[in-house]
Formats: sequence, structure tokens, C-alpha cells
Amino acid sequence: MHTAVFPGTFDPVTNGHLDIIERALDVCEHLIVAVAGNPGKGPLFSIQERVEMMTTAVAVHGDRVSIASFDSLLVDFASKRGIRAIIRGVRGVSDFEDEFRMALANRRLCPEIETLFLMPSDIYTYLNSGLVKEIARLNGDPTPFVPPHVARALVEKLTPNHP
Amino acid sequence: MHTAVFPGTFDPVTNGHLDIIERALDVCEHLIVAVAGNPGKGPLFSIQERVEMMTTAVAVHGDRVSIASFDSLLVDFASKRGIRAIIRGVRGVSDFEDEFRMALANRRLCPEIETLFLMPSDIYTYLNSGLVKEIARLNGDPTPFVPPHVARALVEKLTPNHP
Amino acid sequence: MHTAVFPGTFDPVTNGHLDIIERALDVCEHLIVAVAGNPGKGPLFSIQERVEMMTTAVAVHGDRVSIASFDSLLVDFASKRGIRAIIRGVRGVSDFEDEFRMALANRRLCPEIETLFLMPSDIYTYLNSGLVKEIARLNGDPTPFVPPHVARALVEKLTPNHP
Amino acid sequence: MHTAVFPGTFDPVTNGHLDIIERALDVCEHLIVAVAGNPGKGPLFSIQERVEMMTTAVAVHGDRVSIASFDSLLVDFASKRGIRAIIRGVRGVSDFEDEFRMALANRRLCPEIETLFLMPSDIYTYLNSGLVKEIARLNGDPTPFVPPHVARALVEKLTPNHP
Amino acid sequence: MHTAVFPGTFDPVTNGHLDIIERALDVCEHLIVAVAGNPGKGPLFSIQERVEMMTTAVAVHGDRVSIASFDSLLVDFASKRGIRAIIRGVRGVSDFEDEFRMALANRRLCPEIETLFLMPSDIYTYLNSGLVKEIARLNGDPTPFVPPHVARALVEKLTPNHP
Amino acid sequence: MHTAVFPGTFDPVTNGHLDIIERALDVCEHLIVAVAGNPGKGPLFSIQERVEMMTTAVAVHGDRVSIASFDSLLVDFASKRGIRAIIRGVRGVSDFEDEFRMALANRRLCPEIETLFLMPSDIYTYLNSGLVKEIARLNGDPTPFVPPHVARALVEKLTPNHP
Repeated sequence: MHTAVFPGTFDPVTNGHLDIIERALDVCEHLIVAVAGNPGKGPLFSIQERVEMMTTAVAVHGDRVSIASFDSLLVDFASKRGIRAIIRGVRGVSDFEDEFRMALANRRLCPEIETLFLMPSDIYTYLNSGLVKEIARLNGDPTPFVPPHVARALVEKLTPNHP
Repeated sequence: MHTAVFPGTFDPVTNGHLDIIERALDVCEHLIVAVAGNPGKGPLFSIQERVEMMTTAVAVHGDRVSIASFDSLLVDFASKRGIRAIIRGVRGVSDFEDEFRMALANRRLCPEIETLFLMPSDIYTYLNSGLVKEIARLNGDPTPFVPPHVARALVEKLTPNHP
Repeated sequence: MHTAVFPGTFDPVTNGHLDIIERALDVCEHLIVAVAGNPGKGPLFSIQERVEMMTTAVAVHGDRVSIASFDSLLVDFASKRGIRAIIRGVRGVSDFEDEFRMALANRRLCPEIETLFLMPSDIYTYLNSGLVKEIARLNGDPTPFVPPHVARALVEKLTPNHP
Repeated sequence: MHTAVFPGTFDPVTNGHLDIIERALDVCEHLIVAVAGNPGKGPLFSIQERVEMMTTAVAVHGDRVSIASFDSLLVDFASKRGIRAIIRGVRGVSDFEDEFRMALANRRLCPEIETLFLMPSDIYTYLNSGLVKEIARLNGDPTPFVPPHVARALVEKLTPNHP
Repeated sequence: MHTAVFPGTFDPVTNGHLDIIERALDVCEHLIVAVAGNPGKGPLFSIQERVEMMTTAVAVHGDRVSIASFDSLLVDFASKRGIRAIIRGVRGVSDFEDEFRMALANRRLCPEIETLFLMPSDIYTYLNSGLVKEIARLNGDPTPFVPPHVARALVEKLTPNHP
Repeated sequence: MHTAVFPGTFDPVTNGHLDIIERALDVCEHLIVAVAGNPGKGPLFSIQERVEMMTTAVAVHGDRVSIASFDSLLVDFASKRGIRAIIRGVRGVSDFEDEFRMALANRRLCPEIETLFLMPSDIYTYLNSGLVKEIARLNGDPTPFVPPHVARALVEKLTPNHP
């Protein structure tokens, strides 16, 4: 497997996402992190902000990781680039069922693309972007859950009277 | 079992819904497809559009299937018509738990109405109305998932610059 | 739906099984309770004992319920009798997934037979034959969980020094 | 365990919540019911209304139960008061997984606070605030699911032409 | 809550069990670890061995933890001692559903006894006695999963040509 | 990813296993199918028979697939060969949770080996070796579920009076 794609909203990127990216690099040469432009849920950060935060977060991996944004179907994004593997992290049973359905739909749309599920470190089982935003919104410290530059961005965006 | 009711939002009807309707007709004489008027989630299609699309989709079954819309509690709709069986499709574990809770609440509200769960064809495990709308919104082709007239309606409604 | 089949090991029949039988009789005219002869798990009661206990337990329903034992594939048992509906009770998520797999396999073996899932009363959510046997084995009273004649049979079979 | 906190949105309090409160009082001396101020989901009742309805509902327990509202992280609320136990009710598998993640995140934020999960009565398995609001919205009777004063408040708030 | 009981087969005790015992001591004064005598599954270690291994493992807690074996129903064991709280650890969804059923059955048998569920550390999510035995059986090192004296007992019992 | 290992009992190999093997070959150059020697559950077929049936079944893939049996820990088997990726198929929620625990335990034992989960075709959701054996035992036809040579072996082994 030369190249795989790791899609998501990344609103914002968490340490759990970075853990999956590291594990994916154990099984492929090059990873394209694909940031979904308009996820419909009304993201906190703009697509530019999300791409920038991700770019900083994966800089350590050099050119083995590249970043792209997309507004089409994931399978269209992948097949245009000749990519045949999608990487997804699964943290538990409810994740799993949602991911399974999405993977079955993608397989129906494009049978030659395979989805590979990876398991994050057990210390990230509970972690998702929504939780991190909720913590920041309630004046909690997001530092244990995201890279430092993302923690700063969250505090700036969400703390009511941040100077 | 003479008559049963198959309730839903059907926004829009998919091949998965039609599969359940066919299976329901194996176990009852007559099926009333009950389209929920104001599901609260902000449907894409109006109640008139959803009823029309369903009417076309089940025409093949003749007078064994009838369509109605409703804005009341499902158990009130059913008991006013003397119907004692509700049909629901379940595709997987998360479906199942939501359906179970709704069926227990309905049983508490109206103990003489029973809910029967049917299993769609395994090729529809992943399919729901939300997925189909998402695919159409991203310029994907909804044809494999819905009847042709629904596919056309989706493209007209969701494609930005559709002529 | 004229006739349906309700299969199981019934080692022994519990109040939860009887609850499903009553609900099934709301949606079909006649129910055949099919007792699996050699379930492989090493039943506590012989097939004769299990059939007898069930016969006594459903006597109240008269000739709307009949009892049979079977040692073949369930779909062979059903299709030889022209039965097209299997009734199964599901109590929760783990039940559901096991039942789903079995129903999908049966559908592959015999596509014209449909499985209908019914939900027992919420007061029987926890109940299964294994639990009842475990309680009796530990000198607990099985009376709240099974009909009186089954409670007596359990005590006779499982109490070490029963006179 | 002297004091524990039972957090929630309580929009509105149901008989299921009251069942958990009674069970919690079997294992702690004093319980603080903590009503979340701005749950983000757009509550039907204001924080004042939710606190008042809860206050009336738990009056029977005298000073063993006190009510507070909070707008911060739950673990901050608890640790400021020296409380080391959070009580949560779990009704089923999907509840469980959400609660588990929240409890793991809280443990990461504040390791000395423990979450204890209690199981409601099986007759409340299906019950949550959203269901009760949906029933009232469709002109159903919420009486079997909530205390009388909450049923009145629901009808006043949700019945369109209530005099 | 003065005294609670923590029941199990403990064949053998793992670091996951010890984690739950420590957490339970945060919410009760005294804990009785109740070792099930004849769990039916054919334990590897005798009841004496299991009690001894547990006794050594919890010695650090002094007289706040006591050990007992039992061969009756758990609720009979607890009610004879006037204990009204059972502690159980839950690691995931499948655990949860089994535990829920057992707790509902116990509540039916003895309504005044409550079951409290605690969550082990996320680093023990995967851990159970069966896994540890399997690892030892295949000449793996059980040291990361159990206390040292249990690791030695496993190797002695399971290594084919252990001197 | 050059080489990955696909472990299992394969008692016997089913079309579902073969589907996963094909998908795995889309993401790795070479796959080692590792047949567990003594799975403890009392296999129907000997390790020799299971290796032979698998060898025949994967012959179509030439030297891209090799077969080995093993009696040690899977991570020991893999790390001795310098393999860093384990392939597992997951068919549903209950599979997933078991697989997750095993993968977490393997990661604890050998952190540099990653587990990748693949999803079989939806038409194999229900399929496992146990089901196939049960069908053959009850004189059903295993042909739709396994390769022809395995179907023959099942009938020979399990049909009582097979000539």
C-alpha cells in the first residue's frame, strides 16, 4: 500500500487523530489527510483554519503526510488520485457502526476502494473534537487533548472575554 | 394479521424502505404506510412531496398498500383505525436500540398495539435517507439507492446549478 | 399471516417465552412452538420433558398453539409445513445481533421464509433459561421466573438432596 | 460516601430521573442534583424553570437532596465542593457508551473524582426527556412519565392553543 | 455506604480487578471481596488458591478489605450480612449488557440491594482472567497483567515442562 | 506494507475468510495465513486438515499467500518473522468488541505490531465457521457458504451415515 487517505472534519485536530496518523504511517508510505470542507454540522473553525492547524500538527512527518481539502464525495476524491485505501480510526462500538455503514456505502459507490480501520491508543478512547470544544467552552483546559497551537486557537475562539 | 402500519419520515423513500414494505406484505394482507408530517428534524421534502414519491414507489402493490400522512402520536393514528400491529425495519444494533425504546414507549401508551421488527436485505444494511441526501448534495449519483423518480427529485432539489 | 413457528431450546420454558407466545398470537392465527431436539449445548431437560413442560404451559391457548420437536434445520422444518414466518423474541442488543445473523443465514437457505422479531415485556428483559437454572442450582427460588410446574421440575432436577 | 452529585439537563425531570435519585440515596447520605445551565442543545425550559420543577419533585427527600445549577465543567463544580463521586443512570448500551466516554474524560481532567453508574427500574428503560417532550408536542398525555406538576408545565408550554 | 460486596470468580485476580477494588474503596468504608466457589465454567485455580491469591493481592488495604468465598446466590450472601450494595466493574458494551441482566435479576430476587457499576482505568479495558490464562498457556509472560505472585502461580500451573 | 499476517482457527475456512484474504491482498504484497493449532475450543478438523483445506482454497493467489500453523502467541509468531501488521475481519458489533480487546492486548504485548480491521462483503455478514458446521450437522447443504472441497469435507465428517 503506497498511498492512503485519512478523511475527517478535524474541527479541530486532536491528539487522537494524530495517534491514528502515526499508526497509518506504519502501514503506508504516504498519507493524504483530507479535510472535509462543508461538513454540514456547522464547524467551529473555517476550512482554512482547520487545514492550517493540521498542517502544523503533522509537520513532524515531513513529506510523508500531505493535506488537502475536499467538497465532493470521498470516493470521488480518492479515485481521481488513484488511491485505493481509506484509513479510519474506531474508538468503540458506536463509532464502529457508523463507520461500517459509511464504508459499505463507499464500497457500493466505488468497489475498488477498501476501508481499513485502525484502533487508537486506549488513552484516547474517549476523545473527539466535540468533547474538546465543550471543555474549552466551559473554561476547561484543552491542553491534555490537543497540540499546543490548537489549544491556543480553541481558547481564543471560545473564551468569552479572552483579551 | 389483516392490516399493519409502517410509519416513517421517508425523506425520501429509499430502496431499503421498499424492501421492508415487500417483506411486510408477506405477513399481512394490507399495509398502511404512514408518513410523519412534521418530524422536527427539518425534512428536505415537504409532506406532499414525500407522500407523492411514496405513492409512485408502491404503485406496483396496487390496493394492498395505502398511504396516509399523520401529525399525531403513532399509537393514536393506529388505534383510531383499529390497527394493532406496527412494522419497523431494523438494520443494525444502533437502529435496534432506538426502535426498542420507541416500541416500549408506544406499548406503555397503548398496550394492545404490538411492534414487529423486520430485517431488510443485507445489501441495504447501510442505507438510510440521510446518506442518500448527503450523496446527492456532494454531486454523487443516488441511482443505486432509490427509485428513479426519487433520484430525479433529489438531483433537482440538491444540485446547486441544476438547470 | 395464518401460521408461524416459534423455535427454541426451551430448557426450560420461562415466563419470557410465554410472553412472546401471547404476543405472537396477536399477529397470527396459529403458532407452532418448535422445540429443538439436540441443541448441542447439553440440555438439562430431555426433549420429552421440554415438550411436556411446554405443552402444559400453553394449554390455556387451546388449539391455537401446537407443539413439535425437530432435529433438522429450522427452515426445513418450516418449509415442509408450508410455514413462511418465524417468530423470535429479542431482549437486547446482544440477543439482537445473534438473532440477526441466524435470520440472515436462514434467509440465504430459504428466501421465502421471513423472520419477525417481537419484544418481550420490559419486566422480562433480563430473563433466560440459563439464568433460571443457575438460580435453582444455587438453591434460589425460581418461582418468579417460570410457571409453577416448571419451578417444581427445576427443584427436583437441581436440588442436591431433594427428597 | 457522604455526598455525591447527580448532574443533568433535566429538561424536564422525568420519573426515570427520580428513580435514580431514590437509588442514589441508598448509597450516599446527601445528593446534590446539579442542573446544567446552558446545555447547548437549546432546552425547552429555562434554567429557572428546570430548577423549580426539580425542587418540587425532590421535596419529599427533605434536606438529603439539594439543587444547584452550574455553567462550568462538572468536575470543576464537584471539586470546588470537595465532592468525589458523580452518579449517572444508564438505561442501555447506547447510553452506556456515551456515559463511559464522558466519565473517562472527567477522570482525565480530575482523577480523584469517581463516576458511579446506577441502573433505573426496568419500567423506565425507554424513558428520557426528549421522548416526553415529543409525546406532549403531539398532544399525547405525558402523565405516565413525569410528576404531575411537570405534566402540567409540558402541556402549557407545548400545546398550541392551550387556553 | 458503609460496606459493599465485590463478587467474582477471580480465576485468577488481575490488575483490572485490583483497580476496581481501589476505586470501590473511594466510595465505601469496607469492601468484602466475594469469591464464587463453583462458577460452573471449570476454574483453573481451586477456591482455596483463588482466595489465597486475592488475600495476598489486597493485603495493602489492611482491614478495609476482607475476603469470603460463597456457593449460594449472591443476593443471599449479601442480605445475610446486611449488605445493600454490590460493586461491579464494566469494561465495555458486551460486559455492560451481561452485567445489566444479572443486576436486574438480582433486583427481582432482592429489591433492597443496589448494584453500582464502576469503570476500570482505560489501560485495563481489554483485560480479563481468560486472556491472562490464554497468554500464559501460550508461553507468553503474564507479568504486565497480574500481580507478581499470580504471575508465578500461572506459570507453575500452565507451563508444560515447568521444573 | 509488504507482508501481513491473517490469523484464525479456520475450522473450516469459509467464503467470508476468502473474501477478507482477497481484500487484504489489495493493501499488502504478501499475506501469511496463520492457522492456530490448538484453539482450545476443540476444533472439528485437525490442524493438518485445516491447513490443507486453506492451501487448496488460496491456491488461486499463487505465492502471494502462504500458509503456516502456530501454537504460540500471535505476536511472537509475527515478530519472529519481522511482520508488523495483523489483518482481522470484523462483521459486526460483537465481533468488533472481541477483536478490539484482543488487539489492545496484542499491542500491550508488542507495541510495534499494528492490527488492521477489514470489512467483509455485506453478503457474508452472518457467516462464521460455527454456523457452517451447525448447518452441515443438521443435514443442510453447506455449499453456499464454503468452497466445494470444504463442503465435501464437512459432509464426510458430519453426516452420520455418509457412505
